[in-house]
Amino acid sequence: MQIGVNCLDNRRYEFVVWAPLQGQVSLKVVLPCKKTIPMEKNSLGYWKTTISDLTPNISYYYRLDDKRDRPDPASHYQPHGVHGPSQVIDHSFRWEDGNWKGFDLSEMIIYELHVGTFTPDGIFDAVICRLDELNDLGLNTLEIMPVAQFPDERNWGYDGTYPYAVQNSYGGPKGFKRLINECHKKGIAVILDVVYNHLGPEGNYLRDFGPYFTDKYKTPWGDAINFDDKYSCEVRNFFIENAIHWFRHYHVDALRLDAIHAIFDMGAKHFLSELSERVEEFSQKQGRKYYLIAESDLNDSHVLIPRKSWGYGIDGVWCDDFHHSLHTLLTGENRGYYHDFGKIAHMAKSMKEGFVYSGEYSEFRKRNHGNSSRDIPAQQMVVFSQNHDQIGNRMLGERLSTLVSFEALKLAAGIVLLSPYIPLLFMGEEYGEDAPFLYFVSHSDHALIEAVRQGRKKEFGEFKWQGEPPDPQSTETFLKSKINWNKRMGGNHKVLLNFYKNLIPLRKTNPALSYPDKKSFIVDSLEKQKIIRMRRWNGSHEVFFIFNFNCSEVKIVPSIIEGRWNKILDSSEKIWNGPGSLLPKELNSGNEITIKGQSFVLYNKEKR
Amino acid sequence: MQIGVNCLDNRRYEFVVWAPLQGQVSLKVVLPCKKTIPMEKNSLGYWKTTISDLTPNISYYYRLDDKRDRPDPASHYQPHGVHGPSQVIDHSFRWEDGNWKGFDLSEMIIYELHVGTFTPDGIFDAVICRLDELNDLGLNTLEIMPVAQFPDERNWGYDGTYPYAVQNSYGGPKGFKRLINECHKKGIAVILDVVYNHLGPEGNYLRDFGPYFTDKYKTPWGDAINFDDKYSCEVRNFFIENAIHWFRHYHVDALRLDAIHAIFDMGAKHFLSELSERVEEFSQKQGRKYYLIAESDLNDSHVLIPRKSWGYGIDGVWCDDFHHSLHTLLTGENRGYYHDFGKIAHMAKSMKEGFVYSGEYSEFRKRNHGNSSRDIPAQQMVVFSQNHDQIGNRMLGERLSTLVSFEALKLAAGIVLLSPYIPLLFMGEEYGEDAPFLYFVSHSDHALIEAVRQGRKKEFGEFKWQGEPPDPQSTETFLKSKINWNKRMGGNHKVLLNFYKNLIPLRKTNPALSYPDKKSFIVDSLEKQKIIRMRRWNGSHEVFFIFNFNCSEVKIVPSIIEGRWNKILDSSEKIWNGPGSLLPKELNSGNEITIKGQSFVLYNKEKR
Repeated sequence: MQIGVNCLDNRRYEFVVWAPLQGQVSLKVVLPCKKTIPMEKNSLGYWKTTISDLTPNISYYYRLDDKRDRPDPASHYQPHGVHGPSQVIDHSFRWEDGNWKGFDLSEMIIYELHVGTFTPDGIFDAVICRLDELNDLGLNTLEIMPVAQFPDERNWGYDGTYPYAVQNSYGGPKGFKRLINECHKKGIAVILDVVYNHLGPEGNYLRDFGPYFTDKYKTPWGDAINFDDKYSCEVRNFFIENAIHWFRHYHVDALRLDAIHAIFDMGAKHFLSELSERVEEFSQKQGRKYYLIAESDLNDSHVLIPRKSWGYGIDGVWCDDFHHSLHTLLTGENRGYYHDFGKIAHMAKSMKEGFVYSGEYSEFRKRNHGNSSRDIPAQQMVVFSQNHDQIGNRMLGERLSTLVSFEALKLAAGIVLLSPYIPLLFMGEEYGEDAPFLYFVSHSDHALIEAVRQGRKKEFGEFKWQGEPPDPQSTETFLKSKINWNKRMGGNHKVLLNFYKNLIPLRKTNPALSYPDKKSFIVDSLEKQKIIRMRRWNGSHEVFFIFNFNCSEVKIVPSIIEGRWNKILDSSEKIWNGPGSLLPKELNSGNEITIKGQSFVLYNKEKR
Repeated sequence: MQIGVNCLDNRRYEFVVWAPLQGQVSLKVVLPCKKTIPMEKNSLGYWKTTISDLTPNISYYYRLDDKRDRPDPASHYQPHGVHGPSQVIDHSFRWEDGNWKGFDLSEMIIYELHVGTFTPDGIFDAVICRLDELNDLGLNTLEIMPVAQFPDERNWGYDGTYPYAVQNSYGGPKGFKRLINECHKKGIAVILDVVYNHLGPEGNYLRDFGPYFTDKYKTPWGDAINFDDKYSCEVRNFFIENAIHWFRHYHVDALRLDAIHAIFDMGAKHFLSELSERVEEFSQKQGRKYYLIAESDLNDSHVLIPRKSWGYGIDGVWCDDFHHSLHTLLTGENRGYYHDFGKIAHMAKSMKEGFVYSGEYSEFRKRNHGNSSRDIPAQQMVVFSQNHDQIGNRMLGERLSTLVSFEALKLAAGIVLLSPYIPLLFMGEEYGEDAPFLYFVSHSDHALIEAVRQGRKKEFGEFKWQGEPPDPQSTETFLKSKINWNKRMGGNHKVLLNFYKNLIPLRKTNPALSYPDKKSFIVDSLEKQKIIRMRRWNGSHEVFFIFNFNCSEVKIVPSIIEGRWNKILDSSEKIWNGPGSLLPKELNSGNEITIKGQSFVLYNKEKR
């Protein structure tokens, strides 16, 4: 059931809202003129009315039983924010991506960005200006943090309360379409981050409409969304139609599903399974594939297994274990969930399989965790050395660039981009941005503001020695988190950017690297020396790399047997502001070589 | 990890208790002499001590940090009830079932009984006296309602608080072993009902020992058992070891897992999957198969799918939909969950597939319910016309015998026993017992007693016109629920018993009926006439039956084509106190026949 306001044909619009327990719902038009139009309820609890000759941009509320006026839960636009009236959107747009069919998940090189802090202006149109440079870098996919309407102008996006609306301060529906249109024209796919596990605390009027929530399960944000209790069919429909909404009206290519471990559904058909089924049906109708990529703290391969084999049929999943393995090796940190990582063996296992915890006991979780991802294809795993959460959930929001050496940054870039998985970069990572990415909000309710502040203080109680956490509500916190694009013009920033510019095309053009694949590689690791060695091949193409996580140089004898191997990238070389390399240009079997601390090297086998 | 008190060798016993957050735990022996023995904690939070030269029947508590003395959560015996000390049990017993290997789930004809109300004495030894008669009837499997120690002497068993202990008032561990030993000697298998979704409210000291519960999920009985949160490995172990305990020490053949829909586990390896894996390992070691049969309100085939195909690997499931389809056709009731049933098509679908709700919208649940059980083998479904819940959860605990005609009782017997699934009878059903099976408890805490009373009143608020619900705490309520075995000696009771005695052997001996099988039958139904027709075959054997749910007689033309068909059972005949039959002894293709109201007939194809 399509909800919200849908254009039936020229200037005829159908208004549909689900409110099963209300005795009366009417459409209250507030602009251009005030009038109240009765609605009719069907057996599923949907209220409907159709209006002909609709003036564009009409503003409206729904008036409930008890005379409360509420914005449309499926509003496509909230021009005056989360408390104001909803606005009807004319979705006609001059799309120029008629030939665009997207591309396979396996080809994606993803760049995650937050619209508000990616540019000084913090709007969609400002992102457009930077697309060419991202393209030059070799990136082909933008992942945009949530754009669903949130309170005021400063928010990561996970406090959105209108899942169908595009944030007004970012440029609204038209701005978002312009950005996606430009992306597609430049061959860039767009992943949108959507939140189906909770709604933000301010401007959330869903409870007034119906049983969208259940107290059966607890989430970190309060009552869980009702995916399996009475009336859950229509709640599921609300979110499934939301997924389709972004594909249909905005030409989004894929969705990143936030924190699916907080989607509680004990029913015989899991919400995610129904979602993937409906998205597949939509894909088939459109003659192209739309993807679903989950963030999950479950380490559960079941999410990725096809529906016909009793899985949820989700296309991809973020692999946090890869990040944690890498982060702990580079920083030596061992607090919180990092406690479970820190060995070369963890990094090697993640490189081989994806999940490090595949049923083993986790000290941090105090229980066994996960199941095996050994049989999950590599193109279903997204890996990264940084992302908004891993940076922003630190008290001081430090990026890797401020925690580790320059050599380590190149090493991180190498292991992510040369891995057999889908790489993801976080905005600014490519030039070693050193601004923090802090947690910021701008609520209007004072009690809520204080609650968020206190929550943040409590969360970081053990970090008291670092001082008070930055105030999430302050404008300064937001402004500090903006990236400074000009830094890329000089110094190590420029060198790092050039390094990424060399590395990414290698991944795209070398056949041994270009396809995420678990079946054609070998990884081995030396715990004591902190070395990971890896061979990848594809037909007659073959590459060999060594990653040295040791801070000091290490001597090893590579296990390469036959053929001629030429060095094609060496992070320790002086052109990359490294200490200078001791590695030979051509690798000879059996000869000991010396690899500098925190560096990596890539050799390519010469074809006969 | 084996917990409780385990005999290492002659008179050497190891005491193991899990209390991960306690700073000190000691063993406090209270009988035969008082002494306190310190225990040592291992890294998983298990406290251990070993005692040599143990006098038999030693009584003990565990003394916790704060000097509280608590019975052992894994106590094998609570001779003085749920608050008293635990007693060490010498599990040596003269078993006489050395050759017993159990038999396949597919062969089971199950008889569910409640020890306290099955006989005047209400003890295990009294059940033994009735085994021969049950055997005569053709029943080959006892399903015993929970025997884990509960408060005082009157309880269904679902308020047990010592999952490893055998109810003292039933005869304790020795009594239970004697019963099972006798069963096995007579070729009767034993299924024990166990409760892994909650513990009873009185005498539940588990919280004092460790995080056995979580507030992440709500159950009808309060906080859920902690199957997926911190420390859950050891909680899971507590229940998994419990399953093994019954197989190892009591030679139980199968477990019935109570209400698995209240076992909440979002982890990557579901508790039930781990349970079935561990039971399979134990089975392999023992060289025989132990079964797990679940009660589930989920209608989720996933529970029954093998683990290698991402299911939980549970062997069987109770099919409530079959019951509801049958009950509504016979009684015309349509309140509560019966609202979703009542059509011949429901009964026919359940006969064909098992689940009636396999994704369809349920009016009662106000959501879509279930997934398809079409591909689930018939020997994984248990069907019944009555059970303790379906009788006892009625305000007045009425059995079917007091709700429907005598003809309908025979019809119910027929459809259950001729179905392609595993049949289950509830004690007394076989002779049409008319005593109620009421809900009864005997708590000692006054507030709790009152809470149970009020809860019961609230539950049946809408049945006020029937008067007050019987008082669960009263002895009278318990005594009223005892079955009166002598009734079977006369009148319709005797006739019904004889009817079952004819019907059950047919199921066992006729090859077309003896194996639960979905692949070799055809069902069709006539909604208007309220008729279900069915053919089942096996090799050259073939049977044909007609079930008439119409209260009046119906004329139909059977769709039998070739061969000679002889009537072998006709419930409307006068020998079964029926109105007399109009059905021919030999069925001829194409001839119209008349079948009496609420009756069924079984024809057997003559072999050439």
